[in-house]
Amino acid sequence: IEHNADLILREIGVEIRDDAESLDILREAGADVSGERVRFDPGFCRNIITASAPSEFKQHARNPANTVTLGGANTVLAPGWGPPFIHNIDEGRRYATIEDFQNLIKICHSLPEYHHSGGVICEPVDLPANKRHFDMLASHFRYSDRAVFGALIGAERAQDSVDMARIIFGAEFVANNVCLYAVANSNAPLVWDSAMTGALKVYARNNQAVAVTPWTLAGAMSPCTGAGTLAQVLAEALAGLALAQLVNPGAPCLMGSFASTISMQSGAPTFGTPESAHLVLVAGQLARRLGVPFHTVGALTSSKVPDGQAMEEGTWGLMMSVLAGANFINHAGGWLEGGLVHGFEKAVMDADLCGKVAAFAQGLDLSEKALALDAIREVGPGAHFLASAHTHANFETAFF
Amino acid sequence: IEHNADLILREIGVEIRDDAESLDILREAGADVSGERVRFDPGFCRNIITASAPSEFKQHARNPANTVTLGGANTVLAPGWGPPFIHNIDEGRRYATIEDFQNLIKICHSLPEYHHSGGVICEPVDLPANKRHFDMLASHFRYSDRAVFGALIGAERAQDSVDMARIIFGAEFVANNVCLYAVANSNAPLVWDSAMTGALKVYARNNQAVAVTPWTLAGAMSPCTGAGTLAQVLAEALAGLALAQLVNPGAPCLMGSFASTISMQSGAPTFGTPESAHLVLVAGQLARRLGVPFHTVGALTSSKVPDGQAMEEGTWGLMMSVLAGANFINHAGGWLEGGLVHGFEKAVMDADLCGKVAAFAQGLDLSEKALALDAIREVGPGAHFLASAHTHANFETAFF
Repeated sequence: IEHNADLILREIGVEIRDDAESLDILREAGADVSGERVRFDPGFCRNIITASAPSEFKQHARNPANTVTLGGANTVLAPGWGPPFIHNIDEGRRYATIEDFQNLIKICHSLPEYHHSGGVICEPVDLPANKRHFDMLASHFRYSDRAVFGALIGAERAQDSVDMARIIFGAEFVANNVCLYAVANSNAPLVWDSAMTGALKVYARNNQAVAVTPWTLAGAMSPCTGAGTLAQVLAEALAGLALAQLVNPGAPCLMGSFASTISMQSGAPTFGTPESAHLVLVAGQLARRLGVPFHTVGALTSSKVPDGQAMEEGTWGLMMSVLAGANFINHAGGWLEGGLVHGFEKAVMDADLCGKVAAFAQGLDLSEKALALDAIREVGPGAHFLASAHTHANFETAFF
Repeated sequence: IEHNADLILREIGVEIRDDAESLDILREAGADVSGERVRFDPGFCRNIITASAPSEFKQHARNPANTVTLGGANTVLAPGWGPPFIHNIDEGRRYATIEDFQNLIKICHSLPEYHHSGGVICEPVDLPANKRHFDMLASHFRYSDRAVFGALIGAERAQDSVDMARIIFGAEFVANNVCLYAVANSNAPLVWDSAMTGALKVYARNNQAVAVTPWTLAGAMSPCTGAGTLAQVLAEALAGLALAQLVNPGAPCLMGSFASTISMQSGAPTFGTPESAHLVLVAGQLARRLGVPFHTVGALTSSKVPDGQAMEEGTWGLMMSVLAGANFINHAGGWLEGGLVHGFEKAVMDADLCGKVAAFAQGLDLSEKALALDAIREVGPGAHFLASAHTHANFETAFF
């Protein structure tokens, strides 16, 4: 897969659209630029990334207790992102408002199973699109003291987010510490457009975190086979990460992958599939081999309501991302209808799921106390453990 | 865990209840028998098991195409077992009948995601308890041509099952081939009673498969910690497997584990928990180290209806058992309400889940065709793959 990613970057390359500055940066660094097409020699991007990208860093929250570490053995779970609709049992499905946005922040902030306040927890479509990013970030700062996302789309909004973070954290603190997290998505196949590279450059120059995340529905935006999709995903990620490191060597970055599938019969996006499980498990390995933290997605589903399908698909997605060793999992809860809807009840049900994967990830305690030989001696054959001294001594710390 | 299992078998031992013959067999082999308590020197059971137990064998079905291999990289998925109630959307929850039993066999047999016809798919409570095992096995032979379970409880019913298999397969074939599968459950902690050892001996003597399966709800029937539960599970399994191999060296056996949890606040059994995930993953490793196939359980849930909770818990259970490398997964579908209920719709929903774990377990195709470099070359940046030659060529075999 790594070999083929290199072949893709050499033979086909990526397009950087409407962004002359990024083309200049890449040309100056030695890439082969022809119009908007940029080709890279084998190893070119990887060498740039491994020379300067950090393998682990902190993102600060307003409440220092909620500061998160991105990298290593840490997994940060964030709520859903982006739905223009909400769903709840009282009102059904309708367009989202800023009131929903703020209510969802409050609900998620009250749930310790989420670790991060997220970003566009829903689209507040009652506010003008050109300036609602101010209201969204202000709402996060007002109603949550967890770490937050900055605006993703376009250099101007990214800069607005950095300016707001300076008001909250102080300019000097922001200059030297990661206070914002952002995602830059490729426009697969093999395109980076200026809305994303613009924001990516602003965050990189300001030492704020960017998850460089190829976004692909395999079968439509990448080959209908997993291995081919992964080679393309890695090629896109390498190009984006190299650009970020060239803009500011040492800029805090994550390699991301949001790779799901479509039904080859209907073209409908599908989530929580076994194929997307393969994709995330391999993408996690590719990120670790590159030496950068891994960003991906969680409890996705096509279901319109928080039913059996929703929880089955979401469990697949979240669990596989945890097993993939993801350091940041966006959309760890709340998603319905392929991301069109944030479900209020679903956000709470998924928080329970998040707590379960966190408990699972703790692994098995093999201490002498956990081995409980004394308890087995005390109880012996045919009796029960409910009243044993071991149960009493471990009631608070034992499972359940 | 293995060390502590040996300590448990040496210091505490197991009780073999109401079964003088088994006590004689174990005494003759060198175990320390005192009343019904049997203690074993470290390594005693393991040496007996590894000397003769096969690591892989076939269970024959009436239709040879449905014969299954138990062991190696194979995972056999069987429907739910044992519920006295059924649930469906038209009738809700009610006692099960032989008609339900036969309908569930037909439904499951029509679903290729199940590989085995199972056994007590529900309890036909409209038939007399003392002879309904005949009707159940006859129904499997009549309405399914997959491999089947024999009756588990007591030597007499086990022998009846072997006699029926002789009618179907021929006595000579049954003498030389595995045609029945059975589970022998411990009565945790550390008890084997004659209902189970009696059946175990009949199956072992007739060269039919027995999954020697400690059954424990951790916190009540074993310590409220995972490591202690696993040591006890292994001790119980070693004693049962050694007995089977002493009865008939080379008898086809599996090490089983059905280890779930209880709520330490209410005492209610809980399923699909992160702690039971740890238990099954480690139990699978213990079985592989012992060199026998691994039997366990699948899509368990406490939920009363096929809702979000049911599918979330069931997905945990089935996926973890697959990741544990289980060779046979009982209750891979249909369970509701902690095993009290077989859900008709749930059986179908779980079949979809079974199909997904089977696709996942195939792993990622890394062939040149799957790497799809030509497709990426053909499509290039900014286009789509739906009409590509690669998609057309792979439409039937690609995912989804």
